[in-house]
Amino acid sequence: MYLHDKRRGEQTVEFTNPPKIIATTSVVGPKEGEGPLMDYFDIILEDDINGKDSFEKAESSMMYTAITETIKKAKLKEEDIHYLFAGDLLNQLTSSSFVARDLNIPFYGLFGACSTMTESLSLASLLMDGGFGDYIVASTSSHFSSAERQFRFPLEYGSQRKETAQWTVTGSGAMLLAKEGNFPKVTHVTTGIVKDYGILNADNMGTAMAPAAVDTIYRHFKDLNRRPDDYDLIVTGDLGKVGRELTQKLLLEYGYDVSKCYIDCGEIIFDNEKQKTNSGGSGCGCSAVVSCGYLYKRMMAGELHRILLVSTGALMSTTSSLQGESIPGIAHGVVIEFNKEGDK
Amino acid sequence: MYLHDKRRGEQTVEFTNPPKIIATTSVVGPKEGEGPLMDYFDIILEDDINGKDSFEKAESSMMYTAITETIKKAKLKEEDIHYLFAGDLLNQLTSSSFVARDLNIPFYGLFGACSTMTESLSLASLLMDGGFGDYIVASTSSHFSSAERQFRFPLEYGSQRKETAQWTVTGSGAMLLAKEGNFPKVTHVTTGIVKDYGILNADNMGTAMAPAAVDTIYRHFKDLNRRPDDYDLIVTGDLGKVGRELTQKLLLEYGYDVSKCYIDCGEIIFDNEKQKTNSGGSGCGCSAVVSCGYLYKRMMAGELHRILLVSTGALMSTTSSLQGESIPGIAHGVVIEFNKEGDK
Repeated sequence: MYLHDKRRGEQTVEFTNPPKIIATTSVVGPKEGEGPLMDYFDIILEDDINGKDSFEKAESSMMYTAITETIKKAKLKEEDIHYLFAGDLLNQLTSSSFVARDLNIPFYGLFGACSTMTESLSLASLLMDGGFGDYIVASTSSHFSSAERQFRFPLEYGSQRKETAQWTVTGSGAMLLAKEGNFPKVTHVTTGIVKDYGILNADNMGTAMAPAAVDTIYRHFKDLNRRPDDYDLIVTGDLGKVGRELTQKLLLEYGYDVSKCYIDCGEIIFDNEKQKTNSGGSGCGCSAVVSCGYLYKRMMAGELHRILLVSTGALMSTTSSLQGESIPGIAHGVVIEFNKEGDK
Repeated sequence: MYLHDKRRGEQTVEFTNPPKIIATTSVVGPKEGEGPLMDYFDIILEDDINGKDSFEKAESSMMYTAITETIKKAKLKEEDIHYLFAGDLLNQLTSSSFVARDLNIPFYGLFGACSTMTESLSLASLLMDGGFGDYIVASTSSHFSSAERQFRFPLEYGSQRKETAQWTVTGSGAMLLAKEGNFPKVTHVTTGIVKDYGILNADNMGTAMAPAAVDTIYRHFKDLNRRPDDYDLIVTGDLGKVGRELTQKLLLEYGYDVSKCYIDCGEIIFDNEKQKTNSGGSGCGCSAVVSCGYLYKRMMAGELHRILLVSTGALMSTTSSLQGESIPGIAHGVVIEFNKEGDK
């Protein structure tokens, strides 16, 4: 329909000057550091309060570390960064805002629930390609204990967890975008539309978010006339086992068999049986640390050449749930490509 | 320092293809509709629950009306809109998310507290100038009763209001950006940096936000080598009387006398003495309805040719305040220009 010069279909943009992800950092809590992806994380905290006097401050400190370490890795300074896009799960984004307070970087705060990693990466990439900055940082965080306190019950309450429930990841990831260099590059962004299939159960967010993931992946394939086997990996954010299985099934109904190349960050970050994380990990930090750690490092090692990363968010609040509202979901897709030998 | 093609100084971008604001809508509650700007608002609600069963749902319905009316005014359809940028004050942005659920438009959720109108307008403008869309909508909302319930006390508690306190505006505004047409256009964006001068008192947010407003306005003047008299009006978001006076005084200390062309949306939306709104209005909806109503209509009437709109946000949460944190502020500046006769 609206085929713009940079648009490729209804929801997808193709970059003329794909921004390069020149550095990333992943910071995780001790539980994540004992999981199957332990070797891919940059920093594993010894305890999840990280020497602070609240879990909220600990979360903020993780994001501060992720961002400043990333800038340092690229041998840059705070003043070199033109924009910071960041968000988190806490009310009024206090993790991100308090990080931004300590950084002298123009700041846009985002909320997309657990979709925030690809929301921030999408907007950072759009601004890079638009020519508005030389270096832009995208970041998100989440923390098991601050999320439990805010969304569910105080930990001391000892509430039992349902089988479909997920475990909020304690972690923060940051990515630094630049114009030049032989690094993984962002080639396309597919911006999500909110989908709500009437799921009311806040213990089953994977199911609530699956329709949004399906919609964005389907739209992405259509817009670019691509198929699942155009990707080494398609990676959803934090649907967990339950949501991943549902997404796979729904995509098959739409004619796309993703079974050979599809994983979910929430499902793979923990050993769900051994670590008792039920359906898997969740939280903005989940797709952040998996993409900044596991996926980025595998791309840099030449093991993955083209991935579609689709972080997924459940856009409800405790108030909306109490008022009987169902859970709207959203998912933003970003294509990252890398050829170790450089572009031909 | 990093003088990029589209950058004009450290924090300001100058557009090559300034997006045009082809339509706006302002929806306000009954109290705002009795204030001094009553003639400039498009829709004044008869009561602030707007036929819904909660204040939160009423707030969301106002934003839905603001956005859909704006699209209708431009004789467009939902499907014509490439992106929606929206945010609000409610935890997890439920007003915006639930609006996005009912619209088939790719959605980016933003949180900048009361700075969200210029945050959404900035990002919408950046994406327009970058060539990523033909039509983009920017919107925000706030609601007195949903904000009181979330941030302060249930209304039934009858808590007394301090003199420096502000009154959250019940209202929502939406702006629709396009490439063509003789309409007010966005020429520059100055993205804010978070500033925190250690204010702890949540009843004095104007003072907490003033340093951010001062910083953004100062940076804007420096970046573009402009002076206050280059503008017909400089308009801050919702500092109220107390914050406006402080901003004016601080800018004078930096060598900029804005006294002849400076107003604050929060100070002018109510008759603060008669309407007992103390220091003035606040909330994302404040600068939204004042800019979409009063300012846009005065520009269209040829009474204002160039304005600098600087919405201001206080980035604290009830949790951060309880944990003894001070209140970080942020302010994003947007220049809007219009010559009724067209550009020479």
